[in-house]
Amino acid sequence: MVEIQRLSTTQPDFWDSLEALTGWESHPGAELERRVAEVVDGVRSGGDAALLDYARRFDASEAQTVAELEIPAERLAAAHREVAPEVREALEHAAERIRAYAERQRLEPWEYEDADGNRLGQKVTALDRVGVYVPGGKAAYPSSVLMNAVPARAAGVAEVVMAVPAPGGELSPLVLAAAHVAGVDRVFTVGGAQAVAALAYGTETVPAVDKVVGPGNAYVAEAKRRVYGAVGIDMIAGPSEVLIISDGQADPEWVAMDLFSQAEHDEQAQALLVCPDFVFLDQVQAAMERLLSELDRSEIIRASLAARGALICVRDLAEAQDVANHVAPEHLELSVAEPERLVDGIRHAGAIFLGHYTAEALGDYCAGPNHTLPTSRTARFASPLGVYDFQKRSTTLRCSPQGAAALGRSAGLLARGEGLTAHARSADYRVQGEGGGE
Amino acid sequence: MVEIQRLSTTQPDFWDSLEALTGWESHPGAELERRVAEVVDGVRSGGDAALLDYARRFDASEAQTVAELEIPAERLAAAHREVAPEVREALEHAAERIRAYAERQRLEPWEYEDADGNRLGQKVTALDRVGVYVPGGKAAYPSSVLMNAVPARAAGVAEVVMAVPAPGGELSPLVLAAAHVAGVDRVFTVGGAQAVAALAYGTETVPAVDKVVGPGNAYVAEAKRRVYGAVGIDMIAGPSEVLIISDGQADPEWVAMDLFSQAEHDEQAQALLVCPDFVFLDQVQAAMERLLSELDRSEIIRASLAARGALICVRDLAEAQDVANHVAPEHLELSVAEPERLVDGIRHAGAIFLGHYTAEALGDYCAGPNHTLPTSRTARFASPLGVYDFQKRSTTLRCSPQGAAALGRSAGLLARGEGLTAHARSADYRVQGEGGGE
Repeated sequence: MVEIQRLSTTQPDFWDSLEALTGWESHPGAELERRVAEVVDGVRSGGDAALLDYARRFDASEAQTVAELEIPAERLAAAHREVAPEVREALEHAAERIRAYAERQRLEPWEYEDADGNRLGQKVTALDRVGVYVPGGKAAYPSSVLMNAVPARAAGVAEVVMAVPAPGGELSPLVLAAAHVAGVDRVFTVGGAQAVAALAYGTETVPAVDKVVGPGNAYVAEAKRRVYGAVGIDMIAGPSEVLIISDGQADPEWVAMDLFSQAEHDEQAQALLVCPDFVFLDQVQAAMERLLSELDRSEIIRASLAARGALICVRDLAEAQDVANHVAPEHLELSVAEPERLVDGIRHAGAIFLGHYTAEALGDYCAGPNHTLPTSRTARFASPLGVYDFQKRSTTLRCSPQGAAALGRSAGLLARGEGLTAHARSADYRVQGEGGGE
Repeated sequence: MVEIQRLSTTQPDFWDSLEALTGWESHPGAELERRVAEVVDGVRSGGDAALLDYARRFDASEAQTVAELEIPAERLAAAHREVAPEVREALEHAAERIRAYAERQRLEPWEYEDADGNRLGQKVTALDRVGVYVPGGKAAYPSSVLMNAVPARAAGVAEVVMAVPAPGGELSPLVLAAAHVAGVDRVFTVGGAQAVAALAYGTETVPAVDKVVGPGNAYVAEAKRRVYGAVGIDMIAGPSEVLIISDGQADPEWVAMDLFSQAEHDEQAQALLVCPDFVFLDQVQAAMERLLSELDRSEIIRASLAARGALICVRDLAEAQDVANHVAPEHLELSVAEPERLVDGIRHAGAIFLGHYTAEALGDYCAGPNHTLPTSRTARFASPLGVYDFQKRSTTLRCSPQGAAALGRSAGLLARGEGLTAHARSADYRVQGEGGGE
C-alpha cells in the first residue's frame, strides 16, 4: 500500500495543511552551525594542514599532502575515454544542449547618452575563478557537474575548480568523465564543509575562488551560508520538489512515474499532484501501487511520499495555479492539454515543463535549461542557476561638463539635506567647472 | 596634519600591505551573532508582541500596538508637500533618472525552438512584495529610499514595504518625502534586527515580504544573513569605499574633496588614491590640509583616512589597473584624460566613474546608476542593485513528441548511470510515446 496524504481545497484548513506540508526549516540548528563554523574557521586559519586533517577524519583519506588529493587532468581524460560510448555520447549531447541554452542567457553590456551628453552604461565581466562542489560517494551525479560547470565556462570564467569527496577512495568515473566534458580545470577530492572553506578562502594548494556553487548535504549548505560574503554562493538548497498540475487526461502511469522520479531522490523530496478530477487522483494512486515494486529505490520513494507527498484535489485549473503559486515549486509540470493557457498565470516556479511529453526527467539531464533550481519556496525571489550567476555588472557613468553641472546642483542640494558637506563640495566643483583638466 | 598611509608598488611587501589595508572581516563575531539570532527568532515566534517589545527596548518607542508604528500615507504626502521646493524637485529629478536607468536593466523573456521542435524559454516575473530597510536617526538618507524603492517599482513589484527606525521618535521628513516620491506602499517605524525579522517572517501587522534590501548597521547586516533563505537579500554590505585612479592632471582639490566625500561616511570608510606621479600625491595631501577644516564632518574624515585611507604610488596606469582589480572597489573613479582607454582593463568594480567631471557624489544621488553597490571586494562576484534584483526567471520547456523521444534516450542512459530508475522510466515513457494524451 502506497501511503500518500490526500488534500482538498474544499477543506476549511486546506491552506494551513498545505503550509505545514511544504514548510521547510532552512536553519540546521545551533549544534550543526557550531560544528560547521569550527571546520570552516579551522581551514581558513590552518590551510592545507587543517584540510588534510579533516579529509582524514571525515573521508578516511590516506593522503599525506593536499597535492595528492588533486586528480590530474590525464585521469579525467582517461575516465572520458573509458566510459561506454553511448554514455559518453549522452554526456556530450547534454553538455552541448546546456551550453546552447546558457549562451542565450548571457548578460550584455549597453550604454546610452542622455540629453545633457552624459553617457550611462552597464559593463559586464565574468568571474575570474569559480568552485563547483559535487557530492560524491554513492550519490554521484555527473549531471551536476555539467549543470554547474558548463554555464560557468559559457560565461567566460577563466578557471573552474571542482571539489568532490571520495569517501574511502570511492570516486565515480562518470563524474570524472563529466568534468572532462565540461572543461573543468582542476579537481580536488575533498568534500564537506572543509571543501567549501578551502574553495572560499584558499589554502597553500587549493586556489581561492570567487564563488562556490553546487549541491550538497546539510554541512555543505551551512558552510556555504557561512562563507557567503567572502565569496558568492549560488543558493542554499533544500530538498528537491515537483508539483504536477494535471487535467486528468494523461496516462496515470506517466504521472505516477513522474512523481516517483522526484520521490526517489531522498526521503525529504516532495512530490505533489494537483488535479480537479478526483477519479484521476485515484487512478494515479492505483498506478503507483502497480509500479512501485519495479523500482530500485522503492523504499526511499515510499518514505518520501508518506512523509511529504500529497494528492491534492482542486475545484478547477485556476485554483491549481493558486496552489502552485503558493508552493512556488522547484519543478512545475503542466500536464494538461493546453499548457500555454496556464503558464501566464504562474508567478513562482523554478522550472516549468509544459505538456504531457515534457517530463521533468528530461530537464534534469539534457534538455538544456539548468537543473540547479530554487527550492523551498525560494522561487518567490530566486532564479535557476545560469550564465548570469557567473557574470557581474558594473555601472558606468561618464559626465559631460554641462551634464556634471546640472547633476551637481541636484546632488549638492540632496547632500546638504543629508548633512554630507564633502559630498556637496565635491559636486559643487563640477558645477563651477574649470580645473578639471579637460 | 592629515594622517594617511603612503604605499608604493616598488616596496617588496606592497601587495601584503594592500591586502592588510583593504581586508574586512564580514563576520561580526559570535556574541553579536548570538544576540541577533535571539532577536530574529524572538520576532519570528512572538510576532507583534515581540516586535513591540524590542521597539520599546531598543528604539525607546512608546507605541502600544504595532499598528501605531505604521506611518499613514497621508503623512508621507504631507512631508512631500512641506519640503523646500528646490529639494522636492531634486528628489523628483533623482527618482526620474534612477527610474530611466533601471528600466534599461529589465530582464526580458525569450523563447527559441530547436531542430526537433522543442521550445525552450525563459519566463520573467516580478517579486510580489519587497521590504526596504532604511537607516534612521541622524544618518537619514533619502537617497537610499530612492535607490532601493525605485528599481523595485520599475520591476513591477506589487507592494513595497519600508522599515525605518525612529529612535526617540526622530524621523527625517526628507526620508518620508522620498518614500512618497518612490511610491512606497507602507512604512513602519521599526529598526534593527527586529525590523528585518518582521519583514522576513511577517507578524500579525507587518506583512511578510519576499526579499529584504537596503543598508544598515552590523545588527541589520547579521539579521539579513540570518533570514537569507527564508527571503532573498540584496547583499551584506561592509564599509563604503572609493579608489581613485589619477593621471595627476586634475585639480588636486577636486581629488582631495572626492576622497573626503568617501571618508566622511564613517570611520571605517575607505578612500584610496592611486597615481603614478608622486608629486601629485603630495599636492593632493597638501590640498587635504587646506580643505579639511572647512568641512562639517572633519573629525570622521580624519579618523577614516588615518585608519583606512592610502595614497598609493604606482609605476604606470597599467599597474593602477592591477591595484584596482585586486581591491575590486565599490566605487572606482578614473580621473584621467582618456578614461575609455582604462575601463576595458577593469575587471572588478561596483560603479565606474569616468573622467574628471564624473564625481562619485553625482552618482550617489541622482545620475541614475544605483548607489547600492558591492563592497569589501565582493565586486569580484556581485553586481550593483538593479531592477534584476526584483525580478526572477523561470526556465520553460515544451517538448514535441519527437523531441521528447530523442531527449528521453539520453536522459534514460544518464539516469541509469546515476542509479535513478524512476527518472529513467519516466523518460522511457516519452520515448515509447502514446498514452500521453496528445
